[in-house]
Amino acid sequence: MLLENGLILMDDVEVAAVCDKDEDKLRIASEKISAKNGNAPLQTNSHEDILRLKDIDAVIVGTGWSGHIPIVIDSMRAGKYVAFEVGGAYSLNDCWRMVNTYEETKTPCMMLENCCYGRTELMVLNMVRRGEFGEIVHCSGGYHHDLRSEDLLNGNPQHYRLHEYINRNCENYPTHEIGTIAKVLNINHGNRMISLTSTASKAAGLHKFILKTEKENHKFADVVFQQGDIVTTVIKCAHCQTITLTLDTTLPRPYYTRAFQVRGVNGMYTEETDTVYIESNPPAEAEVRGNGDEYREKYDHPIWKEYLKQGVKAGHGGIDWLVLRAFIESVRRGENTPIDVYDAASWMSISTLSEQSIACGSIPMAIPDFTNGQWIARGDSVSGKYRLD
Amino acid sequence: MLLENGLILMDDVEVAAVCDKDEDKLRIASEKISAKNGNAPLQTNSHEDILRLKDIDAVIVGTGWSGHIPIVIDSMRAGKYVAFEVGGAYSLNDCWRMVNTYEETKTPCMMLENCCYGRTELMVLNMVRRGEFGEIVHCSGGYHHDLRSEDLLNGNPQHYRLHEYINRNCENYPTHEIGTIAKVLNINHGNRMISLTSTASKAAGLHKFILKTEKENHKFADVVFQQGDIVTTVIKCAHCQTITLTLDTTLPRPYYTRAFQVRGVNGMYTEETDTVYIESNPPAEAEVRGNGDEYREKYDHPIWKEYLKQGVKAGHGGIDWLVLRAFIESVRRGENTPIDVYDAASWMSISTLSEQSIACGSIPMAIPDFTNGQWIARGDSVSGKYRLD
Repeated sequence: MLLENGLILMDDVEVAAVCDKDEDKLRIASEKISAKNGNAPLQTNSHEDILRLKDIDAVIVGTGWSGHIPIVIDSMRAGKYVAFEVGGAYSLNDCWRMVNTYEETKTPCMMLENCCYGRTELMVLNMVRRGEFGEIVHCSGGYHHDLRSEDLLNGNPQHYRLHEYINRNCENYPTHEIGTIAKVLNINHGNRMISLTSTASKAAGLHKFILKTEKENHKFADVVFQQGDIVTTVIKCAHCQTITLTLDTTLPRPYYTRAFQVRGVNGMYTEETDTVYIESNPPAEAEVRGNGDEYREKYDHPIWKEYLKQGVKAGHGGIDWLVLRAFIESVRRGENTPIDVYDAASWMSISTLSEQSIACGSIPMAIPDFTNGQWIARGDSVSGKYRLD
Repeated sequence: MLLENGLILMDDVEVAAVCDKDEDKLRIASEKISAKNGNAPLQTNSHEDILRLKDIDAVIVGTGWSGHIPIVIDSMRAGKYVAFEVGGAYSLNDCWRMVNTYEETKTPCMMLENCCYGRTELMVLNMVRRGEFGEIVHCSGGYHHDLRSEDLLNGNPQHYRLHEYINRNCENYPTHEIGTIAKVLNINHGNRMISLTSTASKAAGLHKFILKTEKENHKFADVVFQQGDIVTTVIKCAHCQTITLTLDTTLPRPYYTRAFQVRGVNGMYTEETDTVYIESNPPAEAEVRGNGDEYREKYDHPIWKEYLKQGVKAGHGGIDWLVLRAFIESVRRGENTPIDVYDAASWMSISTLSEQSIACGSIPMAIPDFTNGQWIARGDSVSGKYRLD
């Protein structure tokens, strides 16, 4: 997505080099870039070759989950702005190393959390900022996406995610939901997440799916999966809001939803039924389900108002381009990124802490203060039209 | 509800006595009964007067939450079948006393959990029993009911619930959801709930509501409510299914839902969008929202098939009559009730354990085995058409 739906579409971006361990992928990417740029990019198997290039301004990391943080750290050390794909962290140490490296180098890094730029998410964020829901008390979201077939079992080669499901048990993919919710709740800017509990159901979905579809001769038919089918994580914030996250990827379900919900003392939004409810001006009860579109004209976020005028690009409904553009604009202006290292560390830590909570019988785990106390008075130093504050 | 929507409609039931501390309520109830029976019932302020009546077969308890268990225990000791309104428990000791008294007296008691007899709940239970969703992995439900106005603040006299909200912080009303879910998951019959965590958001809704609607002169304007607006409870079962319960009663929302959801390895039901999904015979994705009605002809529970033929009575969509009828039939046949003392103790304990988990920072609390090991091999000794097994 990073190339086709993003970089290649941007006239002010030159892709000077590509890196992949897989020679085929390297070749295909290079060809796409050449077809647009005219000149062939540097091809390499080692990201260090890229970091040695003096003229590049920024690095974009699209590796598997476990590869993000080491390359992000190396890039910051090389003084290159760095953006990286979404994913959770495997240890708090990795999160801290990322924060520490940022604080030493002051080189911005940005998780490319595309759902933060979703039209609905941004409309609701805009409504929150305009006070339509009043004081916010609770938010929830879920990654309700049946991945059994395409992402987990039938890939060729097998998606690395499958090995996560064989070996680990945690909220392995929190950022699509927690990203927007963290912005709604001013996490790391006057508020922070302080603790969580996490509880996993049994892991039955993938095994039963293999037996149903592939029978006993499937190469994973005897595998005992560790990843619970449904993982429920409940987070508490410094200002006593709660957040519920649900991971739901290995049971049959008919549609993908992030089930985004915001509850305030004056109103609510819930994605599951696309319902906006503002108590001071309530819709008729019969009309609340599916009424979200009626609020778009008034509340669409300025980012999306302009995007609709310009023409929405492909890629997950246009959000892939937006999040990359937000990063590119930060690089061009030499300013902080709208999703920063403290966002990334706190969001990614949810996976680690969820894993630890589950391992210890759903005990509450403290979420570190990655800002070392700065969250209390921390303003947002990002300017520009892609800011999420 | 117990009188108008239930007992008074039943020709084979004679209401021989009524008990209330409030003389007006006592008189009104007696008048209704006399109008139907011809003869006036005994009126008393003490339930002990009723328990001394030799000829009565059963007692029905409709007091406030904290009054249920003591009267249930006294009734069992007096050898009277006893039914009681829904509510949570305030201590595990109360739950154990109820169980111990049952085991000593063998007198059945039944919580009148009307939602167990909901048409949708019973249809889904029937689908579960027929194996349509396969092995069940996760269930959820919530009491999503804005009570700020009618039930909490504007009653005259103030509803006793308000004082719960001023003084306590817990999942105070779990049974409408956990009742059906417990039946789905065979709780106390081959499975049991083993632990829970509970997390409460801040308590902002009621205070803000008072300031908005009643201004500073409201008599509760300075009250600091303890009850969190949203309480999320996550329960784990012996066979590794998970259950999520949400209490949601003091923030604005447009409609009441119990958000009942059942997830299995072969399919799901979710009330929020009234979606049935069976993987072996899936509906088109565009048709899944609101498709529940299409499954009624095939899957309506026998209890509801007959009820629809007979004519559905008033009272929460007909469920008040059904649950009372289930109790009356048990009394008539001299058999166990379809919701028994172990159901009541385990469901009611959720409130106590939720309160303790929240008080201690969302730590996991062990849920007692109220059956003392009998759950492993325990069949269901209820027969008759109102059984929920």
